[in-house]
Formats: sequence, structure tokens, C-alpha cells
Amino acid sequence: MAGAIGELRAAFPGERVVLDEERLAEYGKDESDLGVFQPGVAVKVESAGEVRSTFAIASRYRVPVVPIGARSGKSGGSLAIHGGIGVSMERMNRILEIRPADLTARVQPGVITGVFQAEVERHGLFYPPDPNSLDLCSIGGNVAENAGGPRALKYGVTREYVLGLEVVVPTGEILRVGRQTIKGVAGYDLTALFVGSEGTLCIVTEATLKLLPRPRHVATALVCFPDVDTAAQAVSRVLAAGVIPRCLELIDDVSVQAIARGSPFQLPPGAGAALLFETDGNDEEQVFAEMARVAEMVRGSASGEVVVAQNEAQRRDIWETRKYLSVALRKLAAGKLSEDIAVPRSRIPEMVARCREIGKARGLLVATYGHAGDGNLHCNVLYDGDRERGAADAAVGEILRAAVDMGGTITGEHGVGLAKRDFLEYEQGAAVVALERRLKAAFDPLGILNPGKVFPET
Amino acid sequence: MAGAIGELRAAFPGERVVLDEERLAEYGKDESDLGVFQPGVAVKVESAGEVRSTFAIASRYRVPVVPIGARSGKSGGSLAIHGGIGVSMERMNRILEIRPADLTARVQPGVITGVFQAEVERHGLFYPPDPNSLDLCSIGGNVAENAGGPRALKYGVTREYVLGLEVVVPTGEILRVGRQTIKGVAGYDLTALFVGSEGTLCIVTEATLKLLPRPRHVATALVCFPDVDTAAQAVSRVLAAGVIPRCLELIDDVSVQAIARGSPFQLPPGAGAALLFETDGNDEEQVFAEMARVAEMVRGSASGEVVVAQNEAQRRDIWETRKYLSVALRKLAAGKLSEDIAVPRSRIPEMVARCREIGKARGLLVATYGHAGDGNLHCNVLYDGDRERGAADAAVGEILRAAVDMGGTITGEHGVGLAKRDFLEYEQGAAVVALERRLKAAFDPLGILNPGKVFPET
Repeated sequence: MAGAIGELRAAFPGERVVLDEERLAEYGKDESDLGVFQPGVAVKVESAGEVRSTFAIASRYRVPVVPIGARSGKSGGSLAIHGGIGVSMERMNRILEIRPADLTARVQPGVITGVFQAEVERHGLFYPPDPNSLDLCSIGGNVAENAGGPRALKYGVTREYVLGLEVVVPTGEILRVGRQTIKGVAGYDLTALFVGSEGTLCIVTEATLKLLPRPRHVATALVCFPDVDTAAQAVSRVLAAGVIPRCLELIDDVSVQAIARGSPFQLPPGAGAALLFETDGNDEEQVFAEMARVAEMVRGSASGEVVVAQNEAQRRDIWETRKYLSVALRKLAAGKLSEDIAVPRSRIPEMVARCREIGKARGLLVATYGHAGDGNLHCNVLYDGDRERGAADAAVGEILRAAVDMGGTITGEHGVGLAKRDFLEYEQGAAVVALERRLKAAFDPLGILNPGKVFPET
Repeated sequence: MAGAIGELRAAFPGERVVLDEERLAEYGKDESDLGVFQPGVAVKVESAGEVRSTFAIASRYRVPVVPIGARSGKSGGSLAIHGGIGVSMERMNRILEIRPADLTARVQPGVITGVFQAEVERHGLFYPPDPNSLDLCSIGGNVAENAGGPRALKYGVTREYVLGLEVVVPTGEILRVGRQTIKGVAGYDLTALFVGSEGTLCIVTEATLKLLPRPRHVATALVCFPDVDTAAQAVSRVLAAGVIPRCLELIDDVSVQAIARGSPFQLPPGAGAALLFETDGNDEEQVFAEMARVAEMVRGSASGEVVVAQNEAQRRDIWETRKYLSVALRKLAAGKLSEDIAVPRSRIPEMVARCREIGKARGLLVATYGHAGDGNLHCNVLYDGDRERGAADAAVGEILRAAVDMGGTITGEHGVGLAKRDFLEYEQGAAVVALERRLKAAFDPLGILNPGKVFPET
């Protein structure tokens, strides 16, 4: 490692090579509750060429390279579990180009997603992917994890908006893959392969993104139900009626209790679940008419009124309720393991019930909320410090396996990373995982890029 | 080859092993104008296990395996250019499951796309991808080519609807990749890698597809313009106004002339281009209001009226005009090479002009039409038999390079196949193509699957 550090110090200006232990510890944390795994050194790169140089040094000394974005990940993808060189993308944070006539943009990976969204909206355009952490997370991390968010229901996830990438592969080639056009099928879809590869195949140094015209009107509503089952049935009813709102978020009883005190809304007494709906479009009347149709369909089984936001401030209030759920839950227990399984939509009530049972059997609370419209649920196992951590980990394992057994997946949008690598084979089977390892080796023959992620250690 | 044929005859019932020359010649043709390349033998498989057996036999004798779908391809992907075993998917043509509550379906690859669409529509559901050949082409071929179509503008291409696949790789593993859920990011996105891999990485034996609720109303309109430039400007105006119709098709002057006689519409005298628009949604009033908005935006520069279909018969008439363009053009010349480049939307007028110039310089007519909304244009070089074929091929080369030079791609939806393999490197560069070859080798170490496609022969 000393040799690699020496070469990095020779190759980069001093202020861009981080060796201070306290700062390195910062680079070794994310939002996963997995602990601190710091790199031996961090380097703040400014170009694809610098990433290439870093790979060259790492290859010579056979030390790991770990790409580090905004550290908002939930699965430990950026943790340097084997030390090595942390490659921080924070300085590559420029929006390079917005092309309204082509509905595309080019950005560097360190651009904060929310900053990018605000900028395209100023052009009357729209970048739909909206992970909950959008004020903190970066486009590069979103690409690495194939991030989703509430609006994925109508608009799809990050993958649908990445037209092309500039990447550096561990063998040192700087590659431009994909396209600048909306359609294109030349060669293999390397772009789609790289999106969601969790920083194990390449480091992204630029992304060409697809934009949409910004919908001019949005309607947002919150409605409570006596229990999760009733809420889940309402979800099915709306979707079966042929309405795909842009968001359809479920909040279960534990979550409702957690937010009840802090919520700007007077939740009806005895509310055991809530749904948050959002519709959008260019015609205001139509957007509210669609919301009225949704309200009509759910009102019969609801507790209390369907609260439709009448202005931007009320919209914000409703979203704060959902957005700070994660924070509100932390007040109920010292620790929280957030999973993000997805199941076929028809299995949502069953999955929510299973989560509760699994928690109950171990004396733990499990709060479930998330993107009910597409079956992607965040199951939060709450635990009380180290004493209950073992039980919480065991509960998480059961939840992941239950999701797979229902035809679902261990991760809808957070990635496998370190957190779920031991469950990948349970979902995919040994043959698929073996093939994925072969692919990884084709890109990274020395195994230097983000080792120990996605796949179990061998 | 004799050994392989012997083993196939031992492994399969007699009627499923085709050796008759005339029938083999049928298996050696597609819609590409590239000629006949027949396999040495064809086998009609009925299961993934049979595909695996075929790979095992092919591996022992080192003979090529070429997957054959509905033979409606335009780039020669299913042509057995090195002979070998043609694996016909025609008997694997069952719709296995439609799950309205989950908005998914499972199908075998030989299902005809139009048949599948009609079936899901009977359930009130919608499978958007609509290649022009939908009455002939199969889902397996659509997956292999990542097929698009007019509705891709609003709804995306085949890739967006393939959640998971069962495939057989040349090394014999039968793999289930992807998921049954709407979202999911576990492991690498092998599904997205396989979609559009043109039958060179695996043979698809089952697909899990995403469905949408069927939009209840559709409005269709045709409008003529004095020239292509004016039409292209109208396209930009509509998109810039934040309207994304579900289809936005451009028809250039040569195409307008070709269809003028056969069209059920009285095209205005001197029309030099036409646009076909389609809007859809659940609210009839809103769908027609959106169309009225489009009409408002284009009327000023149009020749004659905006013709909005008033009933299903008129809708069909308008679409027949577009759908049989390919046939109408064949009446203008003995031969036709259909390209399908895509450029950034803002470059459409320039690209149409370049196509015309390129043709003119060689004394050839080039008819351009296609999916203007997403920049995907079909440039048809018309030529008069063998005499002009050389000039036509040269013109195609210039068109492909011009598209790339404008930041575009050599293929928006038809695939590279045999037709465009020599231009892949011009678009992607040597390093990307080298990486793709490495990927191909990771899946197909013996190089037996569909050799000579996508990449130039080495």
C-alpha cells in the first residue's frame, strides 16, 4: 500500500490525496448501518484520465480501488472493506450540457441529483428519478445503483434515463458506450449492463441522460386506512382500473404511529395505514380529475377524508411526512436495518404481513413503507443497540428469503453491495451468479475494483 | 456436419429435423435483401432442454447454431451465413400466463407479437412495443433485436418491457435472469444485456413481460407540409411545447409520392411531407384536447387540413398509409435497402437533407420516413436491380457514417446483424468493440452461436 500511496502523491496535487485518518473515516461511512470501512488513501479525481492513472497504480500494487460518491448508499457499495484506494468523485460535479431541443443532458458523476433536477426544471424539462436522498446523492451513485424512487411507478428508474456513459474499466480503457439518441441498438447494451453494476465493473466519469418535458401540473393526496390490508387492496383497485399515478406510496401502521406526532396532518384516530398518491400532466383540470377518480376508488374503504393538497406548501407537507419517515422511525429504536425488497404487486398484503410476523417472532418491530405501486417495499427492522442486532440481522435474512419465495427480489432499488451479498445466490441460483462472476472477471481480471461487493467472498 | 445431423436425428422426432433443401432455403431468408443463407439442417425445438441438447451437439462437432424466429428481421440476424444448425423457435409459441393483478405475462419466444397484443388487450391490458411487422414477427425476435416501433416515443422499446428471461447459453446452462417484479436491481442486469444481443449470446426460451393498463382512447391525425424541413420544424415545436404524443411519424416527399396514388386520402397538391400523430389516454375529451393542441401548433405551417380520424376505420386508413409505405416504395424501384439510423432530434432536417444529397450524387432515390419524434429514421435507398446495387451499398455506407457524424447511431431498432457489422466500429470505436468481443467470448467460448453477426469477421 505504501508504494501505491507514494505513486498517488507523485501523480496528484497534494490537496487531492487524503491521508488524514479522520477524513478517511468519513470516506468509509454510508447510510447502511454496516459500520466504518475506510480506504487506506483517498484521491479526489477530476477526469477520466486521472481515474485511469489510479487504476494503473492500483494494478501495479494489486490494491483495491473503491469508487466513492455521495455516501448516501444503503447497501454498503462504497465501503472500502478491504482498504485500498478510495476514488472520490466529488470534484467531478459539473453539469456539462443541457440540450432542450434534443431532450438530453450530459453530466459528471458527482452532480447532486436534486441540483441537476432543479437545473433542468429551469429549462422546462424534467429528470424523473427521485431517490429519497436526492438532496444528498449524486448521479454517479444513482447510475451505479440504478436508483429508483416514488416516481418510478410512472416514469421508470435511472436505467431508463441513461442513454450513454463514459467509463473507465479496471484494465485502463476509457470507453464511451451507448448513445446520444433516444433509440439505438448498435452492439451490446453495455450502458444497461453498467447501470446498476454497483461500481464493480467500471467507474463512471460522464453520463448522457434523457430528459422529458416537465409536466405542468401535479396533484398530491394523502389518505388513511384502518389497516395495511385495506390499503393494499385500494392500491390494487386503482391499478386494475387502469390508472397509473406517478407515485403511489404505502405507509404501514408502525410507520403511521412513528409520524403521527410529528405530522402536520391530523391523522384520523385508529389509522392503521396510509397511501400517498400523486398524478401529473399538462392539463390542470385533467390532473385533478384523475386524482378525483383515484379518490373515488379508495374513499369507500378509507378512514377519514382524502386530503388533496391545495397548494405547494401542502404538497410539501405531505411529502415531508413520507420523506422523513426514515428519521421518524429512528426515534422508535436505536438501530434500524432498512431493506428494500420488491414483490409482484398482488403479493403486497402478504409480504407486509410476513414482515410483521417475522419481527414478532423475534420481539422486534418491523415498519414497512414504500413504493406500493410497483411492489417495492422498504422493510425497516428496528432494534435496540448491540443486544438485539443479531436478532435483527436474522429477521432481515428471513424477510429477504420471504420476498424471493413470493417471486420477488432482495433489492428493488438499493443494490446488493455488502449488505445482501450472501443472499444473491438464494435469489438468482448458482449458475447465474457464476456467469456474473465470469463477466466481472472479463472486465476486471485482477479483481481490483470494489472487491467483496455484490458477490460473496470466495 | 454429417455427424451433427446424425446426432440431431437421433435426439429429435423425425418431423422436427428439417433437411429438405427447399424448406431449408425458406429458413435462410429474412426481410433484409441480403440474399439466402441457409442452414445445413434446421431443428424445431420445443423446450429449453432441447436447445441445450442442440448446443451440446453443436459443441461436439464445432458447427454454428443460428436461432431462427419469424424471419421478419431487416439486418440479417437469422441468416445462417456459415451454415450449421438453424434452431427454429416456431413451435415454442405459447402464451404461458397473463397476470392482470401483477401487470405481467410469461410467453414463449415464438409467440407472434400481434397475437400477444390482441390477447392482453382482451384483458384490458397493453403491450406497447409495435414493430411495423407485428403481424409476422415474434416476441423472441423482438427481444433479440430490442425492437421498437412508432409507440416507442411515449412508451419505450422492447427492453423496457422485458422483466426477465429464461435463456440457454452456448455452454449449456439454462438460466433464469431478471425478475417477475417491476423493479429489481440484484446482480448485473443480464436481462438488459441479452435484450438486443441479436442471438449472439444466448437463445431465449421464455420471457416475462411487463404490461400496462390499456389506454381507453386514442386519437390519430395526418397532416401534410410543403416540405420535410417545415415538417421537421413542426416536430420540434410540438416536443418543445412539452407534448409527447404516443406516435409522431414523418413521411418525406419521395414517400408521399409513392403513397399518393394508393392513399385513401386526397393529399393536398404539392405536399412534400406528412406527419402522423397519435395521442392516447383514459379520458376521451383529454385525448382529443391534446390532439387539438398538436393541431394548433402545426396548422400554421401545414399544407391543407389536419385530418383527425373520426372513427376506427379512418384510424386504420391512416395507419395503412404508413404501414404499407415499405410496400409502396417497392413499386418505385426493383430493389430497396432499408436503413434505420437515429440522430439527436434537432438534427432530423439535416439528416433527411443529407440522405437526399447522398442519393442524388449517385443517381439514386432515397425515401426517408420513420419515427421522427425520437429521431429514428428509415432511410430507404431505392435501386434498379444488380446494375445499381453497388451504388446503393455505397450510399448506405455514407448514410450510416453521416448519422454517426451527427452524434447518431447506425441502427435505431433493426440491429446490426450482417447488414451493418462493418460499420459498428465506426460508431463505437475499437476499444468498445474489443470489449464486446471479450463479452461474447465469456458467454460463447467456442464461438458457435450465430457467428459473423454484429462484429466483423476476424
